[in-house]
Amino acid sequence: MQAFVMKEIGQVGLVGKPVPRPGPLDAVVRTTAALICTSDSHTVRGGIGPREGLTLGHEGVGVVHEVGGGVTAFQPGDRVLVGAVTPDWGDLASQNGYPSQSGGPLGGFKFANSKDGVFAEYFHVNEADANLAKIPDGVPDEVAVYCADMLSTGFMGAENGNIPIGGTVAVLAQGPVGLMATAGAKLRGAGLVIGVESVPSRQKLARDYGADEIVDFTSEDVVERVLDLTRGQGVDTAIEALGADATFQTAVKITKPGGVVSNTGYYGEGEFVRIPRVEWGVGMADKTIRTGLCPGGRLRMERLLRIVQGKRLDPTLMTTHTFRFEEMERAFEVSDKKLDDVVKVLIMFA
Amino acid sequence: MQAFVMKEIGQVGLVGKPVPRPGPLDAVVRTTAALICTSDSHTVRGGIGPREGLTLGHEGVGVVHEVGGGVTAFQPGDRVLVGAVTPDWGDLASQNGYPSQSGGPLGGFKFANSKDGVFAEYFHVNEADANLAKIPDGVPDEVAVYCADMLSTGFMGAENGNIPIGGTVAVLAQGPVGLMATAGAKLRGAGLVIGVESVPSRQKLARDYGADEIVDFTSEDVVERVLDLTRGQGVDTAIEALGADATFQTAVKITKPGGVVSNTGYYGEGEFVRIPRVEWGVGMADKTIRTGLCPGGRLRMERLLRIVQGKRLDPTLMTTHTFRFEEMERAFEVSDKKLDDVVKVLIMFA
Amino acid sequence: MQAFVMKEIGQVGLVGKPVPRPGPLDAVVRTTAALICTSDSHTVRGGIGPREGLTLGHEGVGVVHEVGGGVTAFQPGDRVLVGAVTPDWGDLASQNGYPSQSGGPLGGFKFANSKDGVFAEYFHVNEADANLAKIPDGVPDEVAVYCADMLSTGFMGAENGNIPIGGTVAVLAQGPVGLMATAGAKLRGAGLVIGVESVPSRQKLARDYGADEIVDFTSEDVVERVLDLTRGQGVDTAIEALGADATFQTAVKITKPGGVVSNTGYYGEGEFVRIPRVEWGVGMADKTIRTGLCPGGRLRMERLLRIVQGKRLDPTLMTTHTFRFEEMERAFEVSDKKLDDVVKVLIMFA
Amino acid sequence: MQAFVMKEIGQVGLVGKPVPRPGPLDAVVRTTAALICTSDSHTVRGGIGPREGLTLGHEGVGVVHEVGGGVTAFQPGDRVLVGAVTPDWGDLASQNGYPSQSGGPLGGFKFANSKDGVFAEYFHVNEADANLAKIPDGVPDEVAVYCADMLSTGFMGAENGNIPIGGTVAVLAQGPVGLMATAGAKLRGAGLVIGVESVPSRQKLARDYGADEIVDFTSEDVVERVLDLTRGQGVDTAIEALGADATFQTAVKITKPGGVVSNTGYYGEGEFVRIPRVEWGVGMADKTIRTGLCPGGRLRMERLLRIVQGKRLDPTLMTTHTFRFEEMERAFEVSDKKLDDVVKVLIMFA
Repeated sequence: MQAFVMKEIGQVGLVGKPVPRPGPLDAVVRTTAALICTSDSHTVRGGIGPREGLTLGHEGVGVVHEVGGGVTAFQPGDRVLVGAVTPDWGDLASQNGYPSQSGGPLGGFKFANSKDGVFAEYFHVNEADANLAKIPDGVPDEVAVYCADMLSTGFMGAENGNIPIGGTVAVLAQGPVGLMATAGAKLRGAGLVIGVESVPSRQKLARDYGADEIVDFTSEDVVERVLDLTRGQGVDTAIEALGADATFQTAVKITKPGGVVSNTGYYGEGEFVRIPRVEWGVGMADKTIRTGLCPGGRLRMERLLRIVQGKRLDPTLMTTHTFRFEEMERAFEVSDKKLDDVVKVLIMFA
Repeated sequence: MQAFVMKEIGQVGLVGKPVPRPGPLDAVVRTTAALICTSDSHTVRGGIGPREGLTLGHEGVGVVHEVGGGVTAFQPGDRVLVGAVTPDWGDLASQNGYPSQSGGPLGGFKFANSKDGVFAEYFHVNEADANLAKIPDGVPDEVAVYCADMLSTGFMGAENGNIPIGGTVAVLAQGPVGLMATAGAKLRGAGLVIGVESVPSRQKLARDYGADEIVDFTSEDVVERVLDLTRGQGVDTAIEALGADATFQTAVKITKPGGVVSNTGYYGEGEFVRIPRVEWGVGMADKTIRTGLCPGGRLRMERLLRIVQGKRLDPTLMTTHTFRFEEMERAFEVSDKKLDDVVKVLIMFA
Repeated sequence: MQAFVMKEIGQVGLVGKPVPRPGPLDAVVRTTAALICTSDSHTVRGGIGPREGLTLGHEGVGVVHEVGGGVTAFQPGDRVLVGAVTPDWGDLASQNGYPSQSGGPLGGFKFANSKDGVFAEYFHVNEADANLAKIPDGVPDEVAVYCADMLSTGFMGAENGNIPIGGTVAVLAQGPVGLMATAGAKLRGAGLVIGVESVPSRQKLARDYGADEIVDFTSEDVVERVLDLTRGQGVDTAIEALGADATFQTAVKITKPGGVVSNTGYYGEGEFVRIPRVEWGVGMADKTIRTGLCPGGRLRMERLLRIVQGKRLDPTLMTTHTFRFEEMERAFEVSDKKLDDVVKVLIMFA
Repeated sequence: MQAFVMKEIGQVGLVGKPVPRPGPLDAVVRTTAALICTSDSHTVRGGIGPREGLTLGHEGVGVVHEVGGGVTAFQPGDRVLVGAVTPDWGDLASQNGYPSQSGGPLGGFKFANSKDGVFAEYFHVNEADANLAKIPDGVPDEVAVYCADMLSTGFMGAENGNIPIGGTVAVLAQGPVGLMATAGAKLRGAGLVIGVESVPSRQKLARDYGADEIVDFTSEDVVERVLDLTRGQGVDTAIEALGADATFQTAVKITKPGGVVSNTGYYGEGEFVRIPRVEWGVGMADKTIRTGLCPGGRLRMERLLRIVQGKRLDPTLMTTHTFRFEEMERAFEVSDKKLDDVVKVLIMFA
């Protein structure tokens, strides 16, 4: 089969690989659709070290090709979604309520990290009964595939933020995860959602997904504006969706005492992420900082599929580009270089 | 001034009363709009004992008429909402996180219970700075008044239900509180909301407020149907919005292990409310039963006002009847006898 | 091997059975110590239906005898504890945070329910890596075995009760689970623990495990006394540890508005468990009713073992009787008929 | 009356002041005992700006001298404790569950900050019914006074840390707050408490209050040692009780994925407090950072008094020095300059 791999740091391309085989509890899925993520670019640039020959991609859907002897809930031919994170469910971290951390910090993140990813004609899924979910009829592949990571991570930002009904929320950066955090804040019943973003096309998407106000950090002071919009109190929840030290600092500053900074960003640089001491209430303002990694698992995926099945939101508004798998190199370039106002690049398989 | 009172058990009417005066921390509000609640009927029937001469009504908005010397956040002329529940904020129950229970069980419920209610030309508000909220321009009185009890209680049903994004919810009975629980479930991001109701006009409202499925208990077995809709698992959250032993039992039966029965109903009869032993998992199925009383207070009211200001839902769909305050006796009869497919009766003052 | 089974409803005895063999992820343990539980008696009386030939017992420790090929954390010779509940960790209920409900309501409870229990020379453990825990040196078998169910269930009663530091707690009935709920309340930092019990030897144990006050329901009105001890407010948390309708009602009555009734009892009789309507605040007093089933799993067992390793409490105070496995019939009779002030009966294997 | 004030930055002394008078809801207390806190030193050094003539001190007990007309629960002659933090209970932050933040960030902290403190013969208490607590007979003043701040803040560190029964905890620094966090971790049922401290007398106190292991950062690598003691996993909860950037970093490093860094420290210096990026899981390891400010209020104080009344711990082990109020200057010098292995300095009034 063909697989799109990281050949070495900075080098990608299609190569031939054998079709994987499932262990007793596993499945192999024939890929039908996938999405490119900015973290694929992080990886190619060496963010998690050399991964020579590793297949990229962690957002995928497909059709079950083969299952192990111990799999009971799925069979070949089932149309399925798999989360970007595929936990080991018996692990101590899972027992502790944090399956994304199973097998060590961020250990649930296996695709394109500790094993081959989904940018291939076939991919392997561990603990299939627990990590796959059937896609309901009426939900197209190109919709379902957004549940794997974008909805799961973005919504997590909102959920971890402990938003009260009618509460105030700011989402810092309106990339795909930020947009889904915006939608997630709205889904949790936020009363005011402030999207921070400078790119006009993303500002428009933010409004489509429910932002009530847009703050453009290139022309306004974000802290001042957010305090103004909240009568000087700050927001109940600030969701960091970029992964930058400066943005994180802003998030702490605009959160009210008793509020939550909910992080979804991946911080790729620097020795430290810095908390502004005074605005953090010198460590005493009851401001909580939550973090997390994309929740996975069948239950999560089933719940997210219900959201798109019920048309609570249309994630395909984010699909700015669509390519065939054969065009993977060009597709990756568009995403990697952020060409042509790209938001998400969809890959369709034969 | 004129006040609509309970003269004795079973008897209501308009009487003359002096305009109330505020204590140092209190306010007096000139009423502009009010809603009749089924619990007004409970009271008139003697549900809380004899309350001779007590002014009825607990859902009201108006204009600040006079404030005590210690009030700093409001002044005469402010257009304001007051919650149906007006807690004593320093009470031990409030310190414990349950202000509705301040001053004893259900003690935060003062209007038409331990003091005169809002069906009068003027009414008194304790701890005005903490219990009033300004109504934003653009939110009409006849919208804002729904926040006092209907949105606050209905949404509480959803919030106490701990609904996960994409989770499954059943709301048992689609009276006004049930309808707002339905809307609240949707606002929390439920993936499937099942409304149980037999009256066609209320079924329609339930769909308008977000119910995905309607179950008519007069023609279907509710337990069977809900299990069917949830592939045999039961719902994450069942919200009881009627206050009947049989409905409560159904709620326990249709809730999955690990799920929540969230009660909003007022149980007016019988020595016991009964838990079905086997379906409760003989006391071991991790099914939680939550209860609560309409949350009040300025913060809550401000958050609810944001919801209607942002047009997340239109509560006036429930206003089936409107009367002038002078017509209060007729208005009460319509609500009390459930005439003419009544849902909510709005009273407009001069 | 020898196994102590339920021959038919009401009949028990030792029989010969083959030593079990592990599946790929399982283990077989050679039993060294076990405890008899009152729920063994429930089962023998037919509480869960006919279970002809089923080996009884769910509280056991031993030495790993054989492991499946996929087991990595344990090997033959390891001294191990296994929880009374051995969940399927990938199940949807486990993913939802309720592993004891995996495989259906109470489905994590497999021993002496859906498969052979631990009253045998060898027993089988599913998902061994996730369900076994190594017993630290210095913790004897006859101490560790209490973690399987007694500490796990009793402490769960306290944990579900959401006890604040310095809070007030009542534990209704001081059988072994109630005693461990008493100890658990103390471990959570309760400021006042009231033990309800009439048997003098159990009253003494309750004091040993931390009860500050004892209420004897045969000579005092429990509701009155508890209200008196809490200045009329009721307790923050009432833990039901008997499984009787009358006791449950008392628990609701003595809990303050905003408090929690935390159930550990198994209700074996009647169609309903009844909530006293008025004292439940007619469904509005913010009184929460929590339930649960003995938490299992390696993480839980490791944490409980730390408690006994650190000598935070000595569970062997409850061991009123010790028998050899060969004396199992006599041992069971003592426990079943509650002879001789029995609290717990320990079984030592060769 | 005599009051011990900050004359200017760096200067303290006794001065004469009029006895305060209560407003309608307030009380004035005649001081009987007080404790000096390191934050008094911070203040004198200018940490919160110039506070010329402000009476110092926030940990005090006494006898009610006079109450306002609206006070119902206390009367002159009552022996009372007042929390270091005395919230405005109707404030929006209090309604949001964070009374310590009422009136703005850290706004509940009034004594020796926004009004005169307790180092005087008499002091003033706002909202007396909500902020005072009666001291039970049998609890001496010199014990009760520790509840005002030391127990409340230290225990908060443990409570915010979400410690599971049997969980692992590290407490970084064993000053008085750290010692009470150690005791608090034990009160929450921690299975392993690791105290980080280098001073031998404080190491001994840490063991007395329940630390199972002591790590001396002057002779060992704290991160390495804690990972070693937790089999490489890190602790469930790390409590920062110093308020230093380096210690905070260590706290993040030793916390397991899914664990909590619970802050009690006051960070007095620098523009930033820094999170180590990699050990924070690049923002994705489900490590939560909680903060808070000493909880106050009657309910909290009553609960803490139960802990000392029940002799769950003896705070007077921390009283290394006792002075009469007339000796206040010398007393302050001992505390300020950390002379003579000081832990806490107790001041007894006439």
